[in-house]
Amino acid sequence: MANRVAYFGPAGTFTEAAALSYDSEAALLPFPSISAVFSAVESQLADEGVVPIENSLEGSVTETLDILIHESTLTIYRELAIPIDHCLIIAPGRSLRDIAVIYSHPQAIGQCRRYIEKKFPGVQVMAALSTASAVQDMMRNEIPAAAISTARAADIYGAMVAEKGIQDNTANLTRFIILSRRDSNRTGRDKTSICFSFRDDEPGMLYSVMGEFALRNINLAKVESRPNKEVLGRYIFLVDIDGHKEDQGVMEALAALSHKASMMKILGSYPRYSNK
Amino acid sequence: MANRVAYFGPAGTFTEAAALSYDSEAALLPFPSISAVFSAVESQLADEGVVPIENSLEGSVTETLDILIHESTLTIYRELAIPIDHCLIIAPGRSLRDIAVIYSHPQAIGQCRRYIEKKFPGVQVMAALSTASAVQDMMRNEIPAAAISTARAADIYGAMVAEKGIQDNTANLTRFIILSRRDSNRTGRDKTSICFSFRDDEPGMLYSVMGEFALRNINLAKVESRPNKEVLGRYIFLVDIDGHKEDQGVMEALAALSHKASMMKILGSYPRYSNK
Repeated sequence: MANRVAYFGPAGTFTEAAALSYDSEAALLPFPSISAVFSAVESQLADEGVVPIENSLEGSVTETLDILIHESTLTIYRELAIPIDHCLIIAPGRSLRDIAVIYSHPQAIGQCRRYIEKKFPGVQVMAALSTASAVQDMMRNEIPAAAISTARAADIYGAMVAEKGIQDNTANLTRFIILSRRDSNRTGRDKTSICFSFRDDEPGMLYSVMGEFALRNINLAKVESRPNKEVLGRYIFLVDIDGHKEDQGVMEALAALSHKASMMKILGSYPRYSNK
Repeated sequence: MANRVAYFGPAGTFTEAAALSYDSEAALLPFPSISAVFSAVESQLADEGVVPIENSLEGSVTETLDILIHESTLTIYRELAIPIDHCLIIAPGRSLRDIAVIYSHPQAIGQCRRYIEKKFPGVQVMAALSTASAVQDMMRNEIPAAAISTARAADIYGAMVAEKGIQDNTANLTRFIILSRRDSNRTGRDKTSICFSFRDDEPGMLYSVMGEFALRNINLAKVESRPNKEVLGRYIFLVDIDGHKEDQGVMEALAALSHKASMMKILGSYPRYSNK
């Protein structure tokens, strides 16, 4: 039976492209929000789920981080990165000169901000739930509109690509994670994502925790903070380290961390992505 | 002559409330975007500007951070925090039962997510450019709609508060910064915001930089990372430290940092906010 893979849809999103690149044989199941993808895997409607976690221009997808921290019981099973090529899409027969509204997902709008300001100054920018639903919104609109989305979404919804590669920066990559109910085995080229918080003296404790990794020559690939959602100025730290949670040094460092932290959660150990 | 203070408007936003709380005598000038507020102060259209920088539930306002890092020449002159009380707002004569669409700024939608899911399951959620323009969008809509905004915005635009305090978490505070072309003097209870990046080995260098502050007993109030916008997985770090950039210890630590970093920018030294 084909692997059932839930993804942040509808068809035509970059997340669908990531899901296809992960498992081209999978039965793909679109869900309308990131949290619905988590729920689908938790409830066993799907075997795995694909959601975006970070873009090279706009930074973290905070909704994904916050669900991983506060709500989900799933693990990060794999990661992959795909290049993001945004297109300006219009309805057949429309002219670029008439455009009064541009629809897209806020992350895509952010990635094309300078293009929009230069080419369409004063045009109203409207947020859509995904890049693919931006095309649907645009096609439904009676006012001449455009959408920023994928070439595949233009195909699926009967629209037309007016311009390709409109992102402000060509180095535009998005990292996606595969969510699963099971752990990923050691491969020898793994990374581990964890989050933790402290009861008090956060920055001093953070320095001390970073020392536990430095002491064992464990490289930190990423340090990030999210609000703890209780007190302004109090944070939960997210750290990616090199190694698998079953590696001796990582095990020791995580044990030391668990004594210092008031909360700690291992989000997953999984192979580092490489497109080679 | 009154101080001309630009803010992220229109009238009725929480940023207007912050501007009034900062200087109730000021001539307030609304601007339609965060970047327009920066430009207004840079071009001397305004003496100072007010923009949100962080919310206790949703985290950093990344647009503000990215402009501070990459574009602006302004300094952070003051900070202040105000409690955020979201209201559900409808047009006079409408009933809550008929609502088909809810408008608000994406940060406000995030802060009321559980309320919306519980009270209005299946209702379409639409992004607006600000909480105040959400009320304008709602009033213009022929479909029965609601907006999430301030009681003041309801007043200004002739709408009606249907429910108060609808945010998911009562500990909902937003921190705002006052932007200026001049530096803030030492007060003895200051903090300093800086950003920096490294050519390589980021996490190891970050640990070493944190050591420069620890060595001098300088407390770090915040550590955060933003993408460098060039390479996925490469970051610019934002750090808030206790003390003014003219304090001896801070001066030494910043000098040490400037040797280790490939880029460093002091965003401002300013009095720590306290509402006492």
